Formats: sequence, structure tokens, C-alpha cells
Amino acid sequence: MKVIIVGGVAGGASCAARLRRLDEKAEILMVERGPYVSYANCGLPYHVGGVIEQESSLLVATEQMFRAIFAIDCRTRCEAIGISPKKKTVELKNHATGEVTTEKYDKLVLSPGAAPIRPPLPGIDLPGIFSVRTVPDSKEIREWLERGSSGLAEEAQASGFESLDTPKRAVVVGGGYIGLEMAENLAHRGLEVTIVEMLDQVMAPLDPECARIVERYLVKNGVRVALNDAVAGFRQAANGSLEVLTKGGKTYPADIVILAIGVRPETELAKAAGLEIGQRGGIRVDEQMRTSDPDIFAVGDAVEVKDFVTGEWSLIPLAGPANRQGRIAADVIAGRDSRFRGTQGTSVIGLFGGTVAMTGANEKTLTRLGHKDFEKVYLFPNSHAGYYPGAKTLVLKVIFRKSDGRLLGAQAMGQDGVEKRIDAIAMAIQMGATVYDLEEAELCYAPPYGSAKDPVNFAGMAPADVLRGDMPLVHWGSLDGSLLLDVRNPQEVAAEAVPGAVNIPLPALRSRLAELPRDREIAVICRSAVRAYYATRILLQNGFKAKNISGGMLSRSMLVTK
Amino acid sequence: MKVIIVGGVAGGASCAARLRRLDEKAEILMVERGPYVSYANCGLPYHVGGVIEQESSLLVATEQMFRAIFAIDCRTRCEAIGISPKKKTVELKNHATGEVTTEKYDKLVLSPGAAPIRPPLPGIDLPGIFSVRTVPDSKEIREWLERGSSGLAEEAQASGFESLDTPKRAVVVGGGYIGLEMAENLAHRGLEVTIVEMLDQVMAPLDPECARIVERYLVKNGVRVALNDAVAGFRQAANGSLEVLTKGGKTYPADIVILAIGVRPETELAKAAGLEIGQRGGIRVDEQMRTSDPDIFAVGDAVEVKDFVTGEWSLIPLAGPANRQGRIAADVIAGRDSRFRGTQGTSVIGLFGGTVAMTGANEKTLTRLGHKDFEKVYLFPNSHAGYYPGAKTLVLKVIFRKSDGRLLGAQAMGQDGVEKRIDAIAMAIQMGATVYDLEEAELCYAPPYGSAKDPVNFAGMAPADVLRGDMPLVHWGSLDGSLLLDVRNPQEVAAEAVPGAVNIPLPALRSRLAELPRDREIAVICRSAVRAYYATRILLQNGFKAKNISGGMLSRSMLVTK
Repeated sequence: MKVIIVGGVAGGASCAARLRRLDEKAEILMVERGPYVSYANCGLPYHVGGVIEQESSLLVATEQMFRAIFAIDCRTRCEAIGISPKKKTVELKNHATGEVTTEKYDKLVLSPGAAPIRPPLPGIDLPGIFSVRTVPDSKEIREWLERGSSGLAEEAQASGFESLDTPKRAVVVGGGYIGLEMAENLAHRGLEVTIVEMLDQVMAPLDPECARIVERYLVKNGVRVALNDAVAGFRQAANGSLEVLTKGGKTYPADIVILAIGVRPETELAKAAGLEIGQRGGIRVDEQMRTSDPDIFAVGDAVEVKDFVTGEWSLIPLAGPANRQGRIAADVIAGRDSRFRGTQGTSVIGLFGGTVAMTGANEKTLTRLGHKDFEKVYLFPNSHAGYYPGAKTLVLKVIFRKSDGRLLGAQAMGQDGVEKRIDAIAMAIQMGATVYDLEEAELCYAPPYGSAKDPVNFAGMAPADVLRGDMPLVHWGSLDGSLLLDVRNPQEVAAEAVPGAVNIPLPALRSRLAELPRDREIAVICRSAVRAYYATRILLQNGFKAKNISGGMLSRSMLVTK
Repeated sequence: MKVIIVGGVAGGASCAARLRRLDEKAEILMVERGPYVSYANCGLPYHVGGVIEQESSLLVATEQMFRAIFAIDCRTRCEAIGISPKKKTVELKNHATGEVTTEKYDKLVLSPGAAPIRPPLPGIDLPGIFSVRTVPDSKEIREWLERGSSGLAEEAQASGFESLDTPKRAVVVGGGYIGLEMAENLAHRGLEVTIVEMLDQVMAPLDPECARIVERYLVKNGVRVALNDAVAGFRQAANGSLEVLTKGGKTYPADIVILAIGVRPETELAKAAGLEIGQRGGIRVDEQMRTSDPDIFAVGDAVEVKDFVTGEWSLIPLAGPANRQGRIAADVIAGRDSRFRGTQGTSVIGLFGGTVAMTGANEKTLTRLGHKDFEKVYLFPNSHAGYYPGAKTLVLKVIFRKSDGRLLGAQAMGQDGVEKRIDAIAMAIQMGATVYDLEEAELCYAPPYGSAKDPVNFAGMAPADVLRGDMPLVHWGSLDGSLLLDVRNPQEVAAEAVPGAVNIPLPALRSRLAELPRDREIAVICRSAVRAYYATRILLQNGFKAKNISGGMLSRSMLVTK
């Protein structure tokens, strides 16, 4: 059996190594268009930022290792330029020699990845405008950033860029993962960074009110964020530096521009071979990573996958799923019955010492798909026991099904213990857990690590309180006609009051019930919705129509924008 | 309805607050023998160590808060000294006044906790010997530690301790959680610390080979660890300081001694009331936390609980389960059908910057119970992507059922990302997950946080490889008659060789198969069992009888003691 694997990074490399372990006799040829296989593209922004100093650190496995350890015919700078599914051949172009050869396959695996989107805007090819996908990309960016400081000035001039100074101002186009990681790393190098984002939020996989927290955190750390504006073009200024022009009429000066608008699945080869392309523009595969041609498999960023929670086809260009898909394709080629269970979009990003993580479905997506059977809570628990030094407030949004309590998704932000809560919730979602299961989760607790009731437990308790009818919930923005009852103490109210709210501090509530109306819904406010929960319980059991405002004053700053 | 709750810390306080939320009309009386309710006893060692500076930080909720917010009649320094289940009364002694009163109850909840074991050894009542259970205990220890340095010398002398110096040498009796936390905190204060432990390992919930790593880490951080030796008694030395005498004939000088031998459920009240006591010495309760008297409930460290994995009755004095049990008792009293699912023993400890965590069953327990249907793997993955600075090696032992792959338990140690892996595995165990589920787990990945294949994925992949027959496994200590094949490179072998092993580096293996016997089992060695896995695959597919030695050289130092 001869297997050709096109693309030697995450999915392709995983597939090749796994296939060799399963089949010592298979003839395996892995070709990679670029100069390196199995490199750490997730590390590229950190290499640009100097956090990962050596380029060699990014080379996880080399061509030589694939040959020596896995007996794989591994060829770099070798591009698949055509597939003939009928003849079961691939045309390969050797970029070193220009030679084109034709190779037969029994099974073919496509792992071409996704390419950074590079819209045909005026000036897009000016020097100083970069995408971040490959090791050579990061090298070019580093050289550009170091040009004023390391004798590269002449080269810079020769390449048409006249300024002799080290770049000081960066514009990052796009506020997604790569954009934000690049923004942080450029800021880390001392550049002034502006992010220009077409949407009304950064980090599209987050719901907007959560993204707002990220946006504020970026601003607090010196990054400028320009939302709701798209780049119209680029031009070279009189002094030789760049200008980024937007559709909104703004001009941002820049010594370097990073294009991080997003990625597009590389489907040219697949399309030319007549393989089915899905509705989201990725290669369509079945659960076994098989394309519409039974002898051709596809894995990684180029394929559409089923969203594990919503069942929708989606494009999720992440390394973890790509690796799993590569393994599954190898299993199936070796005659095993592995299946890909879909992707739940678990992801994390580190920004200026903070962490943002998420898993499962977000509210935007559920709403777009017309789902109504869900509710959300906002929680602000401590990252670990409040009495142990260093506890930080976590922001946690949990989305769950109303009819049966099934967990649908969670988003979390903070400076400590963020991703471990999302990991536990990701595991729970994978296993079909409900919020009632989270209530009973038994996680690691000692004062430096968590609380006897972990944030993950609260992520179950609060929704369960809602579903059992113990805590009717309402959200900022849906309070029309309700009496607002603020149960914080007067000092807190003095510091930040909610217009129109009546203040009865919680300890006084039982003795002042007569002041409240029985015919009107009462929406209860406190700082984080804990005392308001206690107050809601008192009111409900005394015959009032009470609801807790999820997240209290802490979610108000997320949800009330004016 | 009148409910009396005996004990106002974790389980009792949770029960009281939950019950009030569920029933605004119930009359709730909570009594606590000590001066504080709802205090953070998990924080006591850190208060002794000065990490938590203020004693007031430990007081999570006060008597006044219970009265004001929860309308609970909360009495401290009030001890329940007798129960009459027939009359449904409790005798309460007010320690401030000495007055004894009798109170009627409809439902009674016992949350008396567990008391530090204080064996009747000669000299045990000498000044300078302390247990660590309550806020006053930690206050006394702090005063003792500060006595030479803060004008307390006279007091110390008056109390019979003649040395005027600040204590410099501590002996901690017992190497469990409290003992180790105290050892760290005393070391943090600059004391020389010796741990004396009767067993042949520290941290009994760990398997011994894992405990050995903890032991070495303690020693590396300056703590002396004396195993296999029990304390015989204490005496005052000529200079006024203490001496700890052991059954093994050793004498350890000490300026302070901490007794951390373990805890014993407080069952006197329950026994006197004729309530059923279980085989492990705790109060026997059903899934609804009901004792053998249907109107009396018991929660927390005083009760026996079912081990979630093994189904055995066990004593698990941990705060998380105590809180859950308190909630469940409240639910049941309020007429709800909550049930305690048992405890899986998830726990964590921080030591000198390292973390040790575990969940589920350990090998010792499974063996003791006669289980044979299980296997284990040792893994040594990076805490996050190796190419991102700061990655540390995790030690991970995973135990799983051979017949169906069900996860049974895991133990982990390291300096980064330890407890989050145990949290994910704890969630998996709770949901009945198999190792195949861990293979497919989709956890947070970005270079600073994890790897595209997370340690949790490896914790599924390696066992799954074993169960699918892809990777026959063998352990150090069970290698009789096998040919040892070391596939590391010669430099590695030169640094540390395994006596009798044949060395064929992995890249040369395919061309040197003729050197190996076909009639003998070959046990393959490398550093961490990854290359040995590749080698095992090559050998098996070429007709050899090969097995991988789980954990390679890294587990050898755990398992081979001479």
C-alpha cells in the first residue's frame, strides 16, 4: 500500500507518524510545500515577540527525523500541484529543481491547511505588510522589526522602505486569535499597537459582552482597538512609512502592518480534483475524514467539521482537532473504525498576563441557529480561596439547555485559573454532562488552587438554581417594567448606583418587606448576584415576584453600554 | 419546623445557609463549640506560615452574618453534649456561662468534624506540642513560634518552656496533607523541619512510587523525612527544648512539635445517641445523609461515605465533599430528593512551588480490595508546548480498567499545570469516561497552556494503545527473563545505563533486527517510553515479542529502589 500525504504540519505529520506505527510495511510519502515539516505554527507570534528566542525551537520534528524514525519518504519544498482521482496519481513539483513528477497512490491524505486571507486592497503588496503563517513569515517579520537596529537599514531601503528607524508603530488588521497574539507580542517588543477590526468586537468566538472585557483589557495594556471599521487600503507616506486607510475614513500611520483577518481553507487542489466542498468553503469529509472520493482523505484546517454541540458544519482551524483528525485518517487507512466526534471549539489565548478561554457553543451562534431552549448565567467567582493571597476574580459565562440542563458552552476570562475551569467544563460537555453534574464535580481544592465550592461547581449551582425554579433569572437589558431592588449596602450604592433602583440592604430586607410591591416584578441587584440570590429567595417565599439579575453590578458593566 | 445543626464549620454552615434559602420559615439553630463559625481550617497551615497574615482573613463568615443575612440563631462556644432521639431533644452547654439547656428539634444535623489523633504517649502534653485544627490552635502555634522574638519569653517560661530563643527546629509527626503543609509553612518561616512518619511513604493516598517523588522533593527543599518510624514519646531536654523519641530508637531535638498523625471522626455524641457507626469508625449515613435515625442527619468529616470508584465505605475528610453533603442534608430536610454520589478523593497539595494532585482510586487500594482487572501507565509529558519557555515535566500515573477502558484514578506531580489535568480527569471519572474518551478530549491549547496533544490526551492514548493491543506493556520489577532493549542514543546510555540491556538506537532498529531473538520477550526501554513505543510497534510488526516498559527511565527511578 502506498499512501501520499500532502502537507507535513499538524494534521499531515500526525497522520504520517500514526500510520507508520499501525503499518510498518506501508509506503508513505509526505510532501510539504514549505521548507519545514511539523513546525510549531502556534508559536510563531511568540517567536516574533522574542518570547521564543530561537527559530530552531519551532521545528518540532525535522524531515530527517521522519526518515530516520518513521521510515517515511519526507520531502520539503515539494508541492502537490494536481491530483488525478481516476488514475490515483498526484503531480508533485520539486521547488528546488523545478522538476515535476507523477506519483501513484493507493490512499491520499490532504492536509493543506488554511491560508491567511489577503484581500486585493490597494497597496497590499507594499513592503512592511505581513501575514503570519510559516516560519519564513516570522523570520521576515523579525528582520523587518530589527532592521533599524541591526545594519539592515540598507536592505530596508533597497526593498523600498525609506525610514531607517526601528519600527515603532504597528497596525494589526483583525482582532482574532492571531491578531491579538501578534498585538501582544509586538507590544512586548515595545511597539505602539493598533488593532483595526471590521466587526463590532474582538475575538469573534466570544459573545460580544465577553469580548468587551477583552477589549478593555487590551486598552488598559496600551493597545488601541478600532472596531467597526474595515481597511480600505495602504499607502506609503512621505517619510517612507505606511499608512493604513479605513473605509470609515481613518488613517493609521504604521511602520509595520500585520494582516490577521482570518484564514481560508486551502481547497484549490481538492476543487480541481472534483472533491466535494462544503457550505462553509472547506473540504467536505465524513466522520472518518474521507472526502467524496473514498481513497482520498482530508484533515486539519482545510476541512469542515461538525460542531459537537450544535451539529452544524463549521471551520475550526485549531491544532488539537487537526492532530486528532490526522490520527483518525491513519486509523481508517490502516483498516480501523475510528471516527471523529466533531469539534467543540475549545480554545485559549494569553494576553498581557490574562487568559481568555472558551468551549462549546456561544450565545450568538445559538441565536443565529434559531435555538430558544437555552439560558445563560454570569458568574464572578474567585480563582481560589479568597483568604489565600493572590485570588483573582474570574468572569464566567455559562450557557445551558433549559429543558434538561445540558451544558452547551462556557466562556471565561481572568488572570488566574481560567483555562483549567474551561478544561473541566470541556470534559463535561464532551461527556454530555448537565449543570447538575457540575454541581457535584469534585475538583482539586486547597487554598492556593480553588475553593471548597470551585468556580466549576458554581457554574453548575447557579444554572441548577434557575432550572429548579429556586432562582428566577433576568438579564440587564430585559428589565422593562420591573422594580429594581438593590440589596447592597449604602456605601456600595454610593460608589455606583443604578438609576431608579430602591436600596434595601440585604440584612434589613426581612423587616422592610412592607415597602415592596406585591403586584410587580422585582429585579434584585447586588455586586455579583450572590446576595441578590439570597434576597430573591426571601422575596419568593414571602409571595413576591422576584428575579435575580444575573451577574449583578459586575455583569452590568458588560451588558449596559451607555 | 425546627432544625438544629451541631457544628458550624464547612458541612454545618453550608447546610444552615442552604436550608434557609430553601425554607424561609424554618427555625434554624446552629451551635458551634469553638469561638468561630465557618472558618477556613484549610488555611490554618498558611496562617502559621505567615502566607495568610491576618487571622481575620480566616473567618469566612461570622456569627453575626448568619444572624443578619440568614436569620439563623447561631451560637458559638455552645456545645451539644447529649442527644435524646426519642424525645427529639439536644442538650446544649453554653461555655461562656456554663449553663446547660435542652432544645427540641424536628430535624437534627450533626457536623462535628474530625479531631486530630493525639495518642496517649509519654510527654504528649508537654508545652510546645500542637495539633492544627482550629483558629485558636494556629494562634497558639504562632505565638509559640514568635515567643523568642516578641517579648513572649516570659510567658513561654511561665508555661514551663525555658528556652528564650525563637524556635529553630520543628518535628512534624505524620506525613499526610496537614503534616506536609505544616512542614512547608514552618520551613517557609525558616525552621529546620523533620517529618517523622510511621508508614513507608508520605501522603498515604498516593501510591508509594509516586510518594517517593514527593519525598525526594521535600528532601531537596531541605525537609528531613524519616519514614518507617513511629513516635514513642516526648521529653523535655536539659536546655528546656523538646526531644522526640521514636520506636526505632532515634531522638530528634525540637523547639516545636506538630502532631499531624491524622484525624478521627467525632462520633461520641452520635454513639451516645445510639446512632449506627460504620466499619471505618465514622457515622453511617445513607445517600441522603440520613443516619440510622430518620430525623438525624450527619455530614462532613464525621461520616463514612461511599468511594465513588470502588464503592467501599471510606473516611474522606475533605472540605469539598463536606460542603456538598451539607447542601444535600438541607435539600432532604426541605423535602427534596438530593443524593450524595460518593466521594472520589480528588485532592491537591502545594509544596515548595510544586503541586501534587490525585483523583479516583489508587493502585494500593485496588490491590487491597482484590481487584485484578486494571492496568496502569506512567507518563512524563510537558506541562505545555516544549518550545514555549517554562515547560516542566509532569509525572502522571493513570489507572484504568482492562476489560472496558474505564478510568479508575490518576496521580500527578510537577511544577506547572498539575491540578488542571487532575481536574479534567476527575470530571471524566465522574461522568464514567473511558481512556478512549480522554484520547478525544478537546482541551485548551495555546503554547503557554498546553500542547496540541494535551497530557490528558496522552493519559487516554497510552492506555488505549495498551487495550487495543498496539502496545503490550510491562513494568519495572516484572521483567524476569526478558531481553532488555534500550533504544536511546549512545550518549543517553552513557549517562545512565540499565545493567544487561542491549543498546540499539531507534533510528538503527529496522536495519539491525537480525541481532534480536525471536523466541524471547523483548522489553523496550527509552527515556519516557515514547521512542520505546515506536520501537515496540516496529518489533511487533516484524514478528518479535515486544513490550514497552511504561515510563521508561523516568519511571525506573520511581520503581527501582536499589
